[in-house]
Amino acid sequence: MGDGAVTAHSAIGAPLVVAHGGRLDAARRLYPNAPQPWIDLSTGVNPRAYPLPPLADEVFTRLPDDDAFAALDSAARKAYGAPAGADVVPGGGAQAFIQMLPRVFSAKRVAILGFTYAEHAACWAAMGAQVETVETLDALAGADVGVIVNPNNPDGRTVEPQDILSAATQMSQRGRLLIVDESFMDFTPEGSVARLAQHESLVVLRSFGKAYGLPGLRLGFALCSRWRGAKLRAALGPWAVSGPALAIGARALADDAGRANAARACAGDAARLDALLTQAGFHIMGGTTLFRLAAHPQAARCFTHLAARGILTRAFAGKSDWLRFGLPPNEPAWARLAAALESVDGD
Amino acid sequence: MGDGAVTAHSAIGAPLVVAHGGRLDAARRLYPNAPQPWIDLSTGVNPRAYPLPPLADEVFTRLPDDDAFAALDSAARKAYGAPAGADVVPGGGAQAFIQMLPRVFSAKRVAILGFTYAEHAACWAAMGAQVETVETLDALAGADVGVIVNPNNPDGRTVEPQDILSAATQMSQRGRLLIVDESFMDFTPEGSVARLAQHESLVVLRSFGKAYGLPGLRLGFALCSRWRGAKLRAALGPWAVSGPALAIGARALADDAGRANAARACAGDAARLDALLTQAGFHIMGGTTLFRLAAHPQAARCFTHLAARGILTRAFAGKSDWLRFGLPPNEPAWARLAAALESVDGD
Repeated sequence: MGDGAVTAHSAIGAPLVVAHGGRLDAARRLYPNAPQPWIDLSTGVNPRAYPLPPLADEVFTRLPDDDAFAALDSAARKAYGAPAGADVVPGGGAQAFIQMLPRVFSAKRVAILGFTYAEHAACWAAMGAQVETVETLDALAGADVGVIVNPNNPDGRTVEPQDILSAATQMSQRGRLLIVDESFMDFTPEGSVARLAQHESLVVLRSFGKAYGLPGLRLGFALCSRWRGAKLRAALGPWAVSGPALAIGARALADDAGRANAARACAGDAARLDALLTQAGFHIMGGTTLFRLAAHPQAARCFTHLAARGILTRAFAGKSDWLRFGLPPNEPAWARLAAALESVDGD
Repeated sequence: MGDGAVTAHSAIGAPLVVAHGGRLDAARRLYPNAPQPWIDLSTGVNPRAYPLPPLADEVFTRLPDDDAFAALDSAARKAYGAPAGADVVPGGGAQAFIQMLPRVFSAKRVAILGFTYAEHAACWAAMGAQVETVETLDALAGADVGVIVNPNNPDGRTVEPQDILSAATQMSQRGRLLIVDESFMDFTPEGSVARLAQHESLVVLRSFGKAYGLPGLRLGFALCSRWRGAKLRAALGPWAVSGPALAIGARALADDAGRANAARACAGDAARLDALLTQAGFHIMGGTTLFRLAAHPQAARCFTHLAARGILTRAFAGKSDWLRFGLPPNEPAWARLAAALESVDGD
């Protein structure tokens, strides 16, 4: 794995490989002769960042107060379509909730609709749960906790809202929990179950940084019933979100036109990327408009070929023919990617 | 309580009142006719904020990478005097660790050297521990987990490093944990036990925001043995600190001269505040150079008198003659405080 790997162990002893994108520093050390600047296509982050507003000094010099949290709550609630009966809990990124959920809601058996983002399995296994990867919603609904990443990372698979609601209702009869990780849902809001977030069995996770291109801010949300929200808030404590995240998040989430423009721009980029990859002999497997998953019989060689040219992509342990590509950030990056892909068969 | 109160309940049913400073929004609603701007003396935050450096866009637009964490680690390690054998775990403020410690290290009996910052008791009680407030280090060392806030908030009481080491060593014979919350230690580094942080029984907490006047950033540290650090890091997950916090924290913590200047300036302000309060009939009980605890037979009336003049101080549940004062931020604020204190006996 060119982008670094962290290995955890589940309760049943099976190794779980958790690798993250965005490890440009590691890539620089592994490929010291690659041309600069590196092009980071290893993440699913929008390369067109939301324009940073000027920040008042108070954002840094004061503890975030109730009014700042209320402004963020109001913007997030509207942007996500959360009902009045649901809590919208802010935290330091969707990852902060993936970490905290297993420490707040206990489970013996956790079922995860796979193949998917590995952190869910790693965090539940770290708390002693038996984690299995399943392929159907019925298998999911039989566990204490079910996890659906929707749309899925890395392949973009989607599950229909009414099917999620059925699974959640099935689980509520036994007091169980269905986590729907909507980290990549911003540009396809019609697929979201945020409007059902008051359901007693649901926790819906949203990421701010990916769609708005500001992952360094560390902002995400859990949408859920009031009682689950109260438990999460108590665990996170006061001031779980920074002043800059509150200010920028409230402004960006209230900007419906900006979000629509970003969705259109990313959709255009994704189509352009698909064309480029197809021409280079990749088969497009899926993805979202923030990243594309592509298959190639020699994906590992492609990874190395691109890395030697200063382009970092995402490989997956145990999936030797897969590569995931984020969106190039500008025309020079598109040109370098096109040139690198043209020569991929000539190595 | 003019600054808002949150009530939690311990395992044994006794109410724990947790009140926080910095609730200017609540104060504005309670005292709508107070002159503007409000002067917030309810926190222990340095009013001379560390100058904000210009921030590169990448701080916001990229996930924090290993190099950014390494730079912060290096600066924090040197600033706090942490030994190579200790881990210096960064998180979203000292409070983030106060929240997480009871979820990572379990305890039946927790003893806290009181009277002190209420969040420690509240967070352990929320996890089902039996929490008692004790008055001696010997009583502390008999519990599964002991907590010392040093210097103490609100009265500034200090415990000598050698006495803390003795208690920690006593506890290590039984695998127990001693938490030393050094949130207000920056300007008296000679009193810190950070240099002993590799001790198997110790976790030392440090706050960045208070001494540097940047609490909105959300940055703090736990200094501890490598194995305790690994458990805390696993619980917090990757990217537990934002890009702005990494960049500003690394720069500010490396600035020894800046810290020395800040210490001198705050010491001067604290002496000036003591003189003002003494003249107004308060008895100075203690504190640190970031806040002063003062007693007055009619403290509640003083709180109201000051609030009506747009000056927010900190009162304490069950301590009817105490008021805590932070440092005024500028000369107009000093003048308003002096005028308000002069008229305190005339109500």
